[in-house]
Amino acid sequence: MTKIKVTDYLIKQLNSLGIEEIFGLPGDYNFDIVEAIERNKNVNWIGSTNELNAGYAADGYARIKGYSAMVSTYGVGELSAINAIAGAMAENIPIIKIVGIPSTKHIENKTLLHHNLTNADYRAFERAYSNVVETTAFLNKENAKKEIDRLINTMVKTKKPVYLAIPMDICSIEIEDDFKLKEISSDKNNLKIAADLIIDEIKKSKNPIVLADILTRRFNAINEINNFIEKTSIPSCSFLRGMDIIENDKKNYLGVYVGNLDNKICYDNLNSSDCIIASGTVISDLNTMGFSIKFDLKNHINIQPYYTEIKGRKIENVLMKDILKELTAKINYKSELNLKRTLVYNPSELKEEKPLSSDYIYPRLNEFLKENDIFITEVGLVPFGAIPMNLAKNITIQNQILWGSIGWATPCAEGCAMADKTRRTILVTGDGAHQLTAQEISTMMRNNLKPIIFVINNSGYTVERILCDDVNYKYNDIASWNYEMLPKMFKGDCFCASASTNKEFDEILKAVEKEQKEKLCYIELKTDFLDIPYLSLGIAKNPQRFKK
Amino acid sequence: MTKIKVTDYLIKQLNSLGIEEIFGLPGDYNFDIVEAIERNKNVNWIGSTNELNAGYAADGYARIKGYSAMVSTYGVGELSAINAIAGAMAENIPIIKIVGIPSTKHIENKTLLHHNLTNADYRAFERAYSNVVETTAFLNKENAKKEIDRLINTMVKTKKPVYLAIPMDICSIEIEDDFKLKEISSDKNNLKIAADLIIDEIKKSKNPIVLADILTRRFNAINEINNFIEKTSIPSCSFLRGMDIIENDKKNYLGVYVGNLDNKICYDNLNSSDCIIASGTVISDLNTMGFSIKFDLKNHINIQPYYTEIKGRKIENVLMKDILKELTAKINYKSELNLKRTLVYNPSELKEEKPLSSDYIYPRLNEFLKENDIFITEVGLVPFGAIPMNLAKNITIQNQILWGSIGWATPCAEGCAMADKTRRTILVTGDGAHQLTAQEISTMMRNNLKPIIFVINNSGYTVERILCDDVNYKYNDIASWNYEMLPKMFKGDCFCASASTNKEFDEILKAVEKEQKEKLCYIELKTDFLDIPYLSLGIAKNPQRFKK
Repeated sequence: MTKIKVTDYLIKQLNSLGIEEIFGLPGDYNFDIVEAIERNKNVNWIGSTNELNAGYAADGYARIKGYSAMVSTYGVGELSAINAIAGAMAENIPIIKIVGIPSTKHIENKTLLHHNLTNADYRAFERAYSNVVETTAFLNKENAKKEIDRLINTMVKTKKPVYLAIPMDICSIEIEDDFKLKEISSDKNNLKIAADLIIDEIKKSKNPIVLADILTRRFNAINEINNFIEKTSIPSCSFLRGMDIIENDKKNYLGVYVGNLDNKICYDNLNSSDCIIASGTVISDLNTMGFSIKFDLKNHINIQPYYTEIKGRKIENVLMKDILKELTAKINYKSELNLKRTLVYNPSELKEEKPLSSDYIYPRLNEFLKENDIFITEVGLVPFGAIPMNLAKNITIQNQILWGSIGWATPCAEGCAMADKTRRTILVTGDGAHQLTAQEISTMMRNNLKPIIFVINNSGYTVERILCDDVNYKYNDIASWNYEMLPKMFKGDCFCASASTNKEFDEILKAVEKEQKEKLCYIELKTDFLDIPYLSLGIAKNPQRFKK
Repeated sequence: MTKIKVTDYLIKQLNSLGIEEIFGLPGDYNFDIVEAIERNKNVNWIGSTNELNAGYAADGYARIKGYSAMVSTYGVGELSAINAIAGAMAENIPIIKIVGIPSTKHIENKTLLHHNLTNADYRAFERAYSNVVETTAFLNKENAKKEIDRLINTMVKTKKPVYLAIPMDICSIEIEDDFKLKEISSDKNNLKIAADLIIDEIKKSKNPIVLADILTRRFNAINEINNFIEKTSIPSCSFLRGMDIIENDKKNYLGVYVGNLDNKICYDNLNSSDCIIASGTVISDLNTMGFSIKFDLKNHINIQPYYTEIKGRKIENVLMKDILKELTAKINYKSELNLKRTLVYNPSELKEEKPLSSDYIYPRLNEFLKENDIFITEVGLVPFGAIPMNLAKNITIQNQILWGSIGWATPCAEGCAMADKTRRTILVTGDGAHQLTAQEISTMMRNNLKPIIFVINNSGYTVERILCDDVNYKYNDIASWNYEMLPKMFKGDCFCASASTNKEFDEILKAVEKEQKEKLCYIELKTDFLDIPYLSLGIAKNPQRFKK
């Protein structure tokens, strides 16, 4: 059997999952890991400006490439990234968080080296991480290979982050080079049983509806769900987190569920259905517009990554992808309905020059988006502006509706842009969120990435203004920045502009169409401090305060 | 008994510890806490650009004011700050980390609200924190008052960070307003025994020496140790972390211990002493220049915050401050020696214009520093440049030698400047570290703070270049920024300049003397990518590579 160094083995296996870039910061306990990355010709090291940003960039990368890895040093570096990794846990993003730590002898002797608490408890940070990842491993001479294999398999199966601590002396021990990914497949018999039961339920139902949500994307069943909808024409809709799953031109597509605030056809059809075929659904506050749904999935068909529940009967060992494929192959059903989505933007209008506002920004951005674009919507108000968009083919919308960590989107855009340089990456962020992680723009420029970045400057945390008692509370103000200067400070070539009116925005977008091929584009959009996309009233405190 | 709301009680008690500013970011689960801060006329809310920066700012504030507090929201916000709080744990900085979390009913029902992992385990992040703070509390209706009192007392006693989670519904319940800080005092009898034993040891010793370290500062025994040295003229020195403790004009002061790299008089006297009087000492790698010491504290006098060990005999309930005071009062001993510190900068020379380097920067900065200045030395090379400085009265040098989290210093400077506006705050950081947290400059400007900031632009992580095998490894490169533009982007009034030669630096320092009264000063110092303070060779891999 060929032997290989632990670090070389690790990087080689990660590369076999499609990882070609690894994010992080160097530190004296991880040099051997970073050098193994530099040694591997198929993998590039991407140094970020800080560890939280590196974690978010890895999050974005995994969203597009399937998997990602980030490296930090012991203690200081790993703790700085923990929010990004916890976010990946909440949002089902598979990242392997790799930490370089002091040598085994120091761990055993509790030597008080730097990056320690005074007790030199070398497992303390692994324990902290164990609360926010699927599993952790702490390598030693005996377990190194077995634990790396276990971690990679866990990450692949669960699509969740895992944590790996490698003591310096373990980096260069030699292990056998014989990794095989465990095959994950459905139980054929269970698959048949489940498909038959579901088809039976659909056939005897009066008004079935498909509800697509985020795990359908995370577990790679996008084509399968769309094929099922295509064949059956069963009405379909999605929750907020899955707003990009169903192809928008599908017959009877009803758009995104927004409670009873709007899109009544979706609200009524979903809540009155006697047979919801829910795929990859997560029931959480924002995703369901404040738990406004009137049904319990126990009474419907609940297709999850590795099991399916049919009216409360749970059938295990059935992969989401497989059951959707099986259903599509077997079903003989075609809906005769001809329903139309009601919540969709009208073409943007530019009759007179007006102060820039969400009413213009989002419809106009919808026209700007085109096939294959990656569209990142920062936590806060932006996802609500995206809901009524009519999406061209293969546009993917990234959001972080469950974890909701402001600042996530900017580095996430870096990771997305890095993961697929053939697609356009378009980020819309707010000023408040952007300030948390803005320096990561410099990593984009250093790596010659060319995302298109829109920063909505509304003078503070507007999403929080609508959530608290008084929109004028000072604590929701933020520092005023000259955003147009920001990318220039990072010295790269870029196209910067600022719009205060609808006409200016329209002209800038036309310029961006040309500039974006050669340059990173960075556009400030100045709006009123209380300008919000209408649908965000769904989460506002006393929404009547804001109604026009 | 007067009743008071939980949040008002908390803020009032924190104010009674001297806290007048509280750092953090608002979030929908902590509005009630932030609003209690706004309600309290003696306390100001300081909104930072992100939570890690807020944590570091709180760290700086506590270093000067004694205590500090920071507020974040559940999950996302608290995890982003965890590295700063862990750093406070390692460095004995008392910070209360306050987190606003969802209401008790949601906690009990495990409602899947935003900022959760999918399992809605509301204690997960408290468990993560429990690994890096002295203690945690999670409030409910019954325990609220008791737990707040316990946390504040623990923070005061241990000078370490504590963690407090407050569910939204608990914020406004009413509790009794009768807080009393527990008195902490020495056992009088033990104090007498310890003092007698120590004096006995000193009298029978041939060559006693005082070793001062960081906990002497953290437990407020600076005057006591200096009075003891003043009265006895016993030779004295410090470890790296305590380099500002002993007044530099004390007779027989031998400066900072740097192993056998330099300062031979200190190395010899400390390692050959038959009676080391060690005050607040922490034995860690960098603090002892790579464990180069030749003694074991068990054979000497080890004065710790709450106990003293005399040649291995431990006497409990003896406060550091008290034992030093007692010793000074009782001892009848005067050293006849007349030793001189050898490691001290010569006056800076400006004969010819030369590229700027550490050889000029640090001696010149030493002349720039004056009485009462707060001098913050970023993790990495900067502390080594500070070691040979001759410090005027009451200059405090802040470092983070044990935890060593790059990026800490910039927000720390904000906290220091906020804590005492009558003193000058001077920061020296490196470009690599500065990039991690640079946006916090905008919070300084927004709050009209006027620190003097020097950014050494040496094109990367130079401290890591000297720690790894090849100084040219690309992973130690960073993005190139136009630093002079940075504070201008934040719109405030500032004095910005850049120096590439010794003459330019000298002229800029003269200008800064005038400008610093009215403006934040931000100075880029361009040096070679391998320019290092000579003493940092003490930690270099193969230092002979660098010797001139």
